[in-house]
Order: sequence, then C-alpha cells, then structure tokens
Amino acid sequence: MTEEIVPDVVISRLPWYLHTLNQMAKEGVRTTSSMILAERLGITAAQIRKDLSYFGGFGKQGTGYSIYFLIEQLQKILNLDRIWQVVVVGAGDLGRALTRYPGFANRGIEIVLLFDNDPEVVGTMVGPILVKNIDSLEDDIRRLGIKIAFLTLPASAAQTTAERLVAAGIEAILNYTPVTLNLPEHVHVQRIDPVLHLQRMMYYLGDA
Amino acid sequence: MTEEIVPDVVISRLPWYLHTLNQMAKEGVRTTSSMILAERLGITAAQIRKDLSYFGGFGKQGTGYSIYFLIEQLQKILNLDRIWQVVVVGAGDLGRALTRYPGFANRGIEIVLLFDNDPEVVGTMVGPILVKNIDSLEDDIRRLGIKIAFLTLPASAAQTTAERLVAAGIEAILNYTPVTLNLPEHVHVQRIDPVLHLQRMMYYLGDA
Repeated sequence: MTEEIVPDVVISRLPWYLHTLNQMAKEGVRTTSSMILAERLGITAAQIRKDLSYFGGFGKQGTGYSIYFLIEQLQKILNLDRIWQVVVVGAGDLGRALTRYPGFANRGIEIVLLFDNDPEVVGTMVGPILVKNIDSLEDDIRRLGIKIAFLTLPASAAQTTAERLVAAGIEAILNYTPVTLNLPEHVHVQRIDPVLHLQRMMYYLGDA
Repeated sequence: MTEEIVPDVVISRLPWYLHTLNQMAKEGVRTTSSMILAERLGITAAQIRKDLSYFGGFGKQGTGYSIYFLIEQLQKILNLDRIWQVVVVGAGDLGRALTRYPGFANRGIEIVLLFDNDPEVVGTMVGPILVKNIDSLEDDIRRLGIKIAFLTLPASAAQTTAERLVAAGIEAILNYTPVTLNLPEHVHVQRIDPVLHLQRMMYYLGDA
C-alpha cells in the first residue's frame, strides 16, 4: 500500500487515530474531519492530513472522512485484521496485570503463554493462563509461532532472556524492564517506563 | 527559560534524551553530538538540534554537547531537581506493580499513598506502603499536597474517581484504565494502554 518509507513517529500515531475513531463510531458518529479529529487528539489538523497522506488520503475535499472506512483502512495498515498471539515472560505483579488486562479482548490480542522461573509460581493459574516453567520457553514459542513478547522480568535477567526470545522467533518486544536491550536490528523493541511518562508531565507541573 | 510555547511532542522527547544521556554518562562518556545522540535514539540529528533550540541550544558549533551540562539543563527544564510524591489509586495487580516498581528510586519519584476500596485489601502492605481506604482519598492528598496520581482502577470507577482526585488538587494523571477521562483543561492526563503500544509494532510485523 505504501510507496515510501513511513516515519515511525507517524506509525506511532495511527493507533491513537484508530482508538479515537472507534470511540466516535460508538457514539454514533458517521463522518468526521481532520479538524474534529485534531481537537479530540490534541494535535493539529495539518499533522493528521499529512500522516494519512502517506497511505493515500481517504478523505474527499470538503466532505471529510467516513469513520467506518477510515477505521477499516487503519486496521488494514496496522495489520489488525487478524488475531496476534502474545507471550508474557515474568509472572510478577506486572506480568499478572498484563495477562489479566481486560482491554485486549476484541482488539485482536490474545495472551497465550506466561512463563516464570519461580517454582512457587510455576503451575499456578493467572486468569485462564497456566504459568509455565521458563525452561520450555523456546519450544513453546516455536511451536505456536509467536512473534510478540511482553518482558516483565527483573532487570538482571532481561538481556539473556530477550536473546532467548529472539532465538525462538520473537520479533517484537514490549520491554517493561529498566534495561536497554541490545538485540538484532530486525527486532522491534519498545521500552515502557512509567518514569518517562511522569517526567513529561512534570514539565507542566513546574508552573504550579 | 522559554520564550515561546514548546510543542508537547518536543516535551515528550526530553525524558528520552535525558535517559540516554544518563546512560552515556554511566558509560564514562563526557561529550556528545546531535549525530551520536540521534543514532542512539533512532531519530534525526536535525530533530534533536531543533528540540534543544527551544531552550537555547546548549552546544557550541563543532564541539558538541557536554553531557553533564545537558543532563543538568534537562533536569531543570523538566522540574526534576526535586522529589515528586505520587498517589496510586487501585491496589490490583497493576497498582501493586507500580507501587513496587524499582525504577522510581533515585529518579525523583516517591510513591507515598496507595488506595483501594476492597475491605480484604485495605490495611495490607504493598512493599513499604499501607493500602488505605479510598474514603480518605481527598483528605490524604490535600494534607500532603500531592499533584500526581496513577489511576489503576476498574473502568467503571475511573471517571468518578478521577473527578475526586482533581477536586483534591491532583493536576496530572497517568491513566491506566481503558476510559477516556473527561476533566478540566488544567489537568494533564496521559493514557497508558499496552494495546496502542502493541498496535504500533504490528505495523512492522505484518511484513513478516
């Protein structure tokens, strides 16, 4: 669909567009404009039009966007027209929270494996998922052909475990550890760190 | 320090610059350039120079940036030269994970209050923090003058609890619920949703 390479920062905004459009659809709205979207998202209308132009536009001059059409197109662009299976590595508080997160249902994401190395935790259930011994990590991931992992281990085990994940075929890691992972270029890693989110808000709080 | 309004997207990158600079400082590096920073961060050098120019620059032509000076300046800009106290609302898996998160220590963030409404959970300890009854939310937040909250409640309680937080003086909310909060304009809300992070990566996985 795309002819040129789309900047990652543009890709990072598409899920937000989709999320907002889904909300508007739920509210019964049928068409929208870059102006209305911009107001709801807190960015400029020009930015939205430019982002969407990478994929061919989708709107007619003056008539705006059909919300359902735009949702369908964004889902295709983001490869959301299928179910993605995900593995959670680390069954501590955060791994358990992610495994039980209700927001995955109906959004194309299914947690299918959960690993830990603690003998007290292995064999217990977290929601509908059995905690498996991390010894079978590679075999289970390969067998199911899983490409995406949440890494929620202690920092000391992060790099070695990430390497095992990549060797087993994982291509995308959401990294909740404080470690900057050193992995092959084809692996997509996103660091999730609540401190970085907080620091952004502290800029504004300083005026208070 | 700033003369014009800095776009939020610029502010959102400053914590990442700071994080990377801190890592380089730990590695013993003393000076850097926008080119080296750009390579580590995966964005363009021009973007980094433009972002920093909002705050006056900090580098001399040809000699690059002093890492310690840049760290100090970014900490000042982001108001990190103090300790920020934070309240966690909801002592489920995620609230517990945040309360125990080891990455806050030495980064200016201190979790000081944790609330829940479940009588089985109220009165228990999560790390060094006592779970308090949500009935005393307003009093405790006002008494300590806390401005920042993590919201990790079930969706059904999110909006009403957020309103209580704002009435008690909270000005920044990290919203981990699936709800889009409707709050006064002066309140800074960031929605944290693992689905949106995942969807961004699925764009790239689709080629696989």
